[in-house]
Amino acid sequence: MKRYILPAALALLAACQTAPAPAPTAPEAPVAAEAPSPTASQQWLYGSAEARIAMVQEWNAIAAYVEAKAAARPNASVVLAPRATADAPEFLPCGDKPLAAVFDADETLIWNLGVTAERQRKGEAFDPAVWADWERTGAGKAVAIPGALDGLARIRAAGVEVIVNTNRGHDTAEGNAATLSAAGIGNFVHGSNLFLRGDDDQGSGKDGRRATISETYCVVALVGDQLGDIADLFNAKTLTPPARKALTASPAFDQMWGNGWFILANPVYGPSIAGSMDDVFPADTYWEPSAPD
Amino acid sequence: MKRYILPAALALLAACQTAPAPAPTAPEAPVAAEAPSPTASQQWLYGSAEARIAMVQEWNAIAAYVEAKAAARPNASVVLAPRATADAPEFLPCGDKPLAAVFDADETLIWNLGVTAERQRKGEAFDPAVWADWERTGAGKAVAIPGALDGLARIRAAGVEVIVNTNRGHDTAEGNAATLSAAGIGNFVHGSNLFLRGDDDQGSGKDGRRATISETYCVVALVGDQLGDIADLFNAKTLTPPARKALTASPAFDQMWGNGWFILANPVYGPSIAGSMDDVFPADTYWEPSAPD
Repeated sequence: MKRYILPAALALLAACQTAPAPAPTAPEAPVAAEAPSPTASQQWLYGSAEARIAMVQEWNAIAAYVEAKAAARPNASVVLAPRATADAPEFLPCGDKPLAAVFDADETLIWNLGVTAERQRKGEAFDPAVWADWERTGAGKAVAIPGALDGLARIRAAGVEVIVNTNRGHDTAEGNAATLSAAGIGNFVHGSNLFLRGDDDQGSGKDGRRATISETYCVVALVGDQLGDIADLFNAKTLTPPARKALTASPAFDQMWGNGWFILANPVYGPSIAGSMDDVFPADTYWEPSAPD
Repeated sequence: MKRYILPAALALLAACQTAPAPAPTAPEAPVAAEAPSPTASQQWLYGSAEARIAMVQEWNAIAAYVEAKAAARPNASVVLAPRATADAPEFLPCGDKPLAAVFDADETLIWNLGVTAERQRKGEAFDPAVWADWERTGAGKAVAIPGALDGLARIRAAGVEVIVNTNRGHDTAEGNAATLSAAGIGNFVHGSNLFLRGDDDQGSGKDGRRATISETYCVVALVGDQLGDIADLFNAKTLTPPARKALTASPAFDQMWGNGWFILANPVYGPSIAGSMDDVFPADTYWEPSAPD
């Protein structure tokens, strides 16, 4: 398949070399039309020192937060109660349930390097059948996110259970557990500490599974790369990207980020990759260069 | 200019809608060949709730760290001494100098929305002349990064000076100070609390300016979106992306991330946007789908 590169992507490559700060090595421009190259997002997330550091910083913060909560047991979970809203926030009570931290899997605990490279190498779009195959057979080809293994060890040492709530499929439970195990994340048993899409009738919505987990545990942290890992209300289809962003900044919710609710960077895929020019660049920041003298 | 989109970019857009988690709104595929659309990196960084949250989380962590250092004064700066290496790390002594935190400007204190949208709208590459014009005239069209204003207020309230060390140019000092002021970052005076490229003979290298700042201050935090904001040794031109990443993970340096050295996510431009398929996707994660039955 012939490949082209967006002018803007070339602009970014050029920017690396000249300003605001020069690149330490010249970025590899895709000179050969057939040579696959990672996207800028893939280069940053999976390849760069900067993203590794961002992950380590955040995992250290997650572990420190969970340790503090284990030392001073909270009364309320960080899971929103049914029908909670930004105006009427309410969290599930904890009772005397054991503590747990709940993690998304993909791009939260593990980086899906094998399948991402395979799609990019071939210039092929996402394919549900290939993804399902990846869930079945990818063990060993996904890696733990930098900082995750140290963070999980601290969380477990604090006596807090590690639970995975992922939209990987119910039908591929064995492969999903094998993938987590091979990456060093831990040993997971479907329905016990591993919850999958298809476990209930809510599709990719995770609120039902969060409710199930909360029957057994007091959840002290929710961690993901997408807002659906925190609460389904953030993924209402009526929300434009600016409205969705504004909802996360409402007073009841804004205080939760880094304080029970944690988001890790993932510029490669997901609902965060959306929005028109007008959504992404507000009108009041419109700028044109000066006219030549 | 005609526009094309990489097959892989289409793959990512498709992935948003189907897996691992569905998009809350259908991403806008660039159906019209002439309609400009933000890149995935731009959508994530400048448009998404997820990136806003990642920024707020990290700015809160930076502020908390600086507050702790102000309360328990350190003996050593976090600025590496001349000729320090990973094997022989050494930091500048603090003496009884006043405390400061040193920040990069672009994509650390402010998001450069005006010029980024202008280049993307026109499908044009980075142009040093346009960028210089942006430095002169962009005030009001760059915005404070989410979390920065609250973080800076906490840092100043702790009695720690806020210093900017940026590769914006010496010749555009007035516009650069106006841009920071208009974004609410503060009032900056060139040579006092604002240091620019061209202040010395080291080009975009920042070690010389860090040494100058350290003549007056004990630096308790270095914050940026690129490793050059921490130490120039990370930008040695001989380092491949994997070697550069490994250097940040060497024992002497790894303990510093989130602990005096801080990196904020920027997948849009810079030296982090580099690397071949082999650099970004290690060979031991190579994967192919199963053969059909």
